[in-house]
Amino acid sequence: MKAEILSVGTELLLGDIVNTDAQFLAGELARLGFTVLYHSTVGDNEERLTALLEMALLRSDIVLTTGGLGPTADDLTKEVCAKALGLPLVEDEESMRRIEACFRNRGSEMPETNRKQAYLPQGCTIFRNNHGTAPGCAMEKAGKIIINLPGPPRELKAMFLEQVLPYLSRFAGGTIVSHTVRTFGIGESAMAERAAQFLKQENPTVAPYAKDGEALLRVTAKADSPEEADALCKPTVDALCALYGDLVYGVDVDSLQQVVVQMLRERGMKIGLAESCTAGLIAKRITEIPGSSEVLECGIVSYSNRIKEKILGVSPETIEKYGVISAETAAEMAMGAWRVSGADIGLGVTGLAGPDGDERGNPAGLSFIALTDGKHTLARTVNTGRGGDNREYNRFVTSSNALDLIRLYLLDEK
Amino acid sequence: MKAEILSVGTELLLGDIVNTDAQFLAGELARLGFTVLYHSTVGDNEERLTALLEMALLRSDIVLTTGGLGPTADDLTKEVCAKALGLPLVEDEESMRRIEACFRNRGSEMPETNRKQAYLPQGCTIFRNNHGTAPGCAMEKAGKIIINLPGPPRELKAMFLEQVLPYLSRFAGGTIVSHTVRTFGIGESAMAERAAQFLKQENPTVAPYAKDGEALLRVTAKADSPEEADALCKPTVDALCALYGDLVYGVDVDSLQQVVVQMLRERGMKIGLAESCTAGLIAKRITEIPGSSEVLECGIVSYSNRIKEKILGVSPETIEKYGVISAETAAEMAMGAWRVSGADIGLGVTGLAGPDGDERGNPAGLSFIALTDGKHTLARTVNTGRGGDNREYNRFVTSSNALDLIRLYLLDEK
Repeated sequence: MKAEILSVGTELLLGDIVNTDAQFLAGELARLGFTVLYHSTVGDNEERLTALLEMALLRSDIVLTTGGLGPTADDLTKEVCAKALGLPLVEDEESMRRIEACFRNRGSEMPETNRKQAYLPQGCTIFRNNHGTAPGCAMEKAGKIIINLPGPPRELKAMFLEQVLPYLSRFAGGTIVSHTVRTFGIGESAMAERAAQFLKQENPTVAPYAKDGEALLRVTAKADSPEEADALCKPTVDALCALYGDLVYGVDVDSLQQVVVQMLRERGMKIGLAESCTAGLIAKRITEIPGSSEVLECGIVSYSNRIKEKILGVSPETIEKYGVISAETAAEMAMGAWRVSGADIGLGVTGLAGPDGDERGNPAGLSFIALTDGKHTLARTVNTGRGGDNREYNRFVTSSNALDLIRLYLLDEK
Repeated sequence: MKAEILSVGTELLLGDIVNTDAQFLAGELARLGFTVLYHSTVGDNEERLTALLEMALLRSDIVLTTGGLGPTADDLTKEVCAKALGLPLVEDEESMRRIEACFRNRGSEMPETNRKQAYLPQGCTIFRNNHGTAPGCAMEKAGKIIINLPGPPRELKAMFLEQVLPYLSRFAGGTIVSHTVRTFGIGESAMAERAAQFLKQENPTVAPYAKDGEALLRVTAKADSPEEADALCKPTVDALCALYGDLVYGVDVDSLQQVVVQMLRERGMKIGLAESCTAGLIAKRITEIPGSSEVLECGIVSYSNRIKEKILGVSPETIEKYGVISAETAAEMAMGAWRVSGADIGLGVTGLAGPDGDERGNPAGLSFIALTDGKHTLARTVNTGRGGDNREYNRFVTSSNALDLIRLYLLDEK
């Protein structure tokens, strides 16, 4: 079945808020197996909303609207939808009681304007709003369904998950299951080129995405049951993992840091960090993961040379001879982090986030990463080739490379 | 003039990403004085994209597309748009050189598939991509304009602000100027209540926004020239600054960290950080600002008690008696950061990011912040009241409070 999302609200058209409702509904509808081909956004305007709604009803079986259910005169989504299906609005007593109670609980009188929120299309399925005053509803006529949902994300999400999901599940034809193969260290086009034959597949489909130095492939299958869809995906996921080998850092994982924290926990190992150009970003990413306190012993943000020497024990001669931005300094920072923290692994990162290069001729975007366990040292040089206002990008990509280096080290430490 | 936004990307329809591009463009177009009546989203599908584009060209003067400019076969936005206007695609040599250079700088060969990104509609205005390989463009025919922009928000924003904005300004009717008064330490509704009489104004308008513990007011005026619009805004901006006093951390600034780094630089002062629950986030935010190396002496991420004691010199008795999550531990961490770094100011933060509280009964979202200059100590307790999956929110709000505490200290150190 085809579903589409119609967002109503002038604040969306003005860019005052980002449309997280559409993203949420799109994800939920995809999981239910609905085909969503369009999202549209329109303001609180009867004529334009009516036109869009009529078009949506022509090309889709279910139209989900968000917003425009408030008490004021410019909230007219429900009115327009009921009119489009030829349904009169009738007072729903329970809704009226709930709205009155809502105000009573806040210790205030219900303004007269809120009464209109309790008028709903005749014969509709009513969705209670447990977080606000506007009820939602589903109205059906001639094989078409319109579902009205409130705009505030908290109200919409709760209503959808608790009431709309069960309502919709009887229409869901088949299921869509997606798996994501995440890689690091290969560009999007190089990845897509290597996977060319997979990208032509139909069920499951394979689609490449790239973001901030990472590339991923989404494998999506459609079938009658989640188990069948899953079984359709599996051979492709396995083949892609084999194709990319160690470049794959995880399947259905959220992030490099999630994988690194998990690998460290599995091995009972701890890490100490010495960050210069990334300046806390690696620590910040690792500690996004609950339970990371077991694996991160400490992090030192050593922006100044004085701190590199004083806390990390980097030798002034090394800095003098090779420069702060050098593989040699990174190696001594890693050794310092290892020694100071007493952790199993020490990591050192030094580089230039930008906007400018340095007086030794090192360009912005160049960084050196080193990892040591006291015996062995791994090193990586990163050059994003980007200066100017790419400071955040450079820091992020450098931190990703550092996490990836930890991952590769841990792969060998089974 | 009427403009509309057409977002292209299956990942939007599947709910994989939220459409921040549409929000950004909508805000920018509104500021330029364009009337935006529709946003639409469609997948990478030639037939549906063509149909939507044709409709958009009927009802609007300018159509801005986002996404679908990548190197792979399913990227077809530019091709569909050029076809709709009857323009052939021709190779642009400079774009080809830029794309080749992009790969060369990364030390890799340009994959053959990327060549197609350098083919652009004949006679179009080309927008260079300083953050990626896909150039954008504006094609005009018969009084209609289509503007193609890349999907990645970083690429899109830079291209829009640097090149599309000047291109579009000649079509804009009148000028809109906005100024933003940013506050910290007051909730959105309390802020709006205090500014009630301002919120009713017409030109300039005043609108409140809240995000991640901060509240801001946007003052927007429309006039024939930027100077006139600016002059209309000024009395209101001044009045709001007077109304909120020290709660205002800046007008037209980007962030708390920007203000803190600037204040430290103006005073020639340096800071040392000791972070527990925020774990590098404060260091990361400070070092987002170019030139922060002059003011951040060092940061210590002391996740473990051992490191708090060993590097920062927090006494085991303090931890034993008051707990790690306590004002006393925060104060000793601040003192340790001050001593170890040799900076003018030391800052210590300890708390619970969540998901859970601790065995002493401290709830997730509770944190203690202390600041010392060796003589005076400032302290702040933060309790967001949020556990569960609010880990990132708690860390962010705590780091903002820490930055705000530094700001208030520096206000007194003129």
